[in-house]
Amino acid sequence: MVDDAFYMQLCIDEAWKYQGLTYPNPAVGALILDQHEKLIAIDAHHEAGSAHAELNVITKALTLLGDTKVSKIKNPIEKHQYVLKHHHNYFLGATIYVTLEPCNHTGSTPPCSLLVKELGFKKIVIGTMDPNPKASGGASILKNSGVNVSEGVLQKECELLLEPFKKWQTGDPYLFFKLAKTQNGVYSGGIISSLESRTLVHKLREKIDLLIIGGNTVRVDRPTLDCRLTGGKAPDILIYSQSKIFDFEIPLFKVKNRKVFIEDTLERVKQYKFIMIEGGQSMLEASLSYTDHQLFFTASHMQKGDVLQIDTNLQSLHSHQVGVDKLEWFKKI
Amino acid sequence: MVDDAFYMQLCIDEAWKYQGLTYPNPAVGALILDQHEKLIAIDAHHEAGSAHAELNVITKALTLLGDTKVSKIKNPIEKHQYVLKHHHNYFLGATIYVTLEPCNHTGSTPPCSLLVKELGFKKIVIGTMDPNPKASGGASILKNSGVNVSEGVLQKECELLLEPFKKWQTGDPYLFFKLAKTQNGVYSGGIISSLESRTLVHKLREKIDLLIIGGNTVRVDRPTLDCRLTGGKAPDILIYSQSKIFDFEIPLFKVKNRKVFIEDTLERVKQYKFIMIEGGQSMLEASLSYTDHQLFFTASHMQKGDVLQIDTNLQSLHSHQVGVDKLEWFKKI
Repeated sequence: MVDDAFYMQLCIDEAWKYQGLTYPNPAVGALILDQHEKLIAIDAHHEAGSAHAELNVITKALTLLGDTKVSKIKNPIEKHQYVLKHHHNYFLGATIYVTLEPCNHTGSTPPCSLLVKELGFKKIVIGTMDPNPKASGGASILKNSGVNVSEGVLQKECELLLEPFKKWQTGDPYLFFKLAKTQNGVYSGGIISSLESRTLVHKLREKIDLLIIGGNTVRVDRPTLDCRLTGGKAPDILIYSQSKIFDFEIPLFKVKNRKVFIEDTLERVKQYKFIMIEGGQSMLEASLSYTDHQLFFTASHMQKGDVLQIDTNLQSLHSHQVGVDKLEWFKKI
Repeated sequence: MVDDAFYMQLCIDEAWKYQGLTYPNPAVGALILDQHEKLIAIDAHHEAGSAHAELNVITKALTLLGDTKVSKIKNPIEKHQYVLKHHHNYFLGATIYVTLEPCNHTGSTPPCSLLVKELGFKKIVIGTMDPNPKASGGASILKNSGVNVSEGVLQKECELLLEPFKKWQTGDPYLFFKLAKTQNGVYSGGIISSLESRTLVHKLREKIDLLIIGGNTVRVDRPTLDCRLTGGKAPDILIYSQSKIFDFEIPLFKVKNRKVFIEDTLERVKQYKFIMIEGGQSMLEASLSYTDHQLFFTASHMQKGDVLQIDTNLQSLHSHQVGVDKLEWFKKI
């Protein structure tokens, strides 16, 4: 069925591509149908400090219309101002879908509710309401302005996108476990994931503030755990290990501008907010009780090697293709 | 980008849901945009002898328009005739996307090319051309009638859908290996897949004409290998085994209207056309060289048990969600 849920699912799919990368902001997806309900553009929020999903999808639509400037404006405030002046009434009578209620406050960007109102959208379909009291109220403003507001479409699925953001709101750390495995569940034996997957992991490493890794993995794999594929700042490292004996000549200990802790407790976590755990069987098993999500990259090939022998119920939150690998987010249930 | 490839991908996704179930016909997906390019409906060919993808998606569109009769007509010829009389010029100026060139001959249904022409579609976007010389020519007919024909959109991806059909055309058997596994690659230990996945497997068993299974699986798991979840005819069984010793009292040997062979060669395959192999490590390993595809149902949970220890390169052809499981088609590369 091509209905509101169908279009909201497209927004959700787009938003999950940026899950983690938008922290501390929520992952949000948006989509525009023109006045004749022709699908024009789909986009998402990409990273904190940049344009929200609504402004991104409007930018995309204007670019398709022939505007050559808007996509080059990096500053979201300038982009917002530009769009207010150069929309050519293109969105009069159009419909916008957003997984999250448009923000109603001026943060690092002006309010998206204003944008939706000023551009003349006739209808907005919202997945879930903004849990942030500072930013909420966008739906009410739009209703009062005469926009047709539909709320709660695929609400549960849209809420799943917000979990890291909700942790940040309550001041709690958000932890996720990342693992690469083959189609038959092997997680050892050299590089398993595609370059695309590894590049995404490096992007995530740029966003997290702490990376936890098991002592054995450091001793055996001798990883660098930096962001060399993307060029950004490497995260602080907590090597979770009883023994303090390591080969301190390996590159991991030489990366500039980061701290490396070797500790046998997880007390350090309290000083950080956005934390990724990398490891194999033992780290996954140990971390299942306190991690919010598990992120698996599954390659399509099979190889012989160490496999995970664990009993646990997991709920798949979302999956999509990254190069030849499948990326899938899970939650313990 | 919302372009021809975007819409063709939606057709491809829909078609894969019926892969195997349409045999000996190809799996085909189709989609309609109205004259304003509003997405109206997506559908696929469901099974041989029933309506083709084009007629199915037109039926869906007419039903959405308020036609209460068309969806109830089971006979595809009657449905075709009904649509020719009751389309209300709704498709004038519309666009249809099809993964495969519309057929141009009268088989168990009248030609779809005629339908597209008579209903006044202004444009057709085709994934790949019909390899069947008897049925091809639909694109030419439409071009000559003034329809805007665009060919070769996601051609490679659309061709992947045709592999079982192509085998049937050349008279060769089509063989695929089916396995259910957990997220960590365990394939043993009771029921792994969801009811939705097992129902789909039973639907596939209704379509195949031979099911091959390893002797050990019969001895240990004592499966029935029928279609009790869907009610159709159970396939013939080839138990591939050196030893002829079995407990002949298990339900497998009691299913009516089917043959069970116990043989230590695969010579029997030559007498069949559409063959599924079920098994674990040893059957997968042995069959990789002669199976066309591998079909894995991967559950989201993890459990301890036997895992596949195999080295092989696989290409993922397509995956989608079936209940809480992921269904994925692979090809050895």
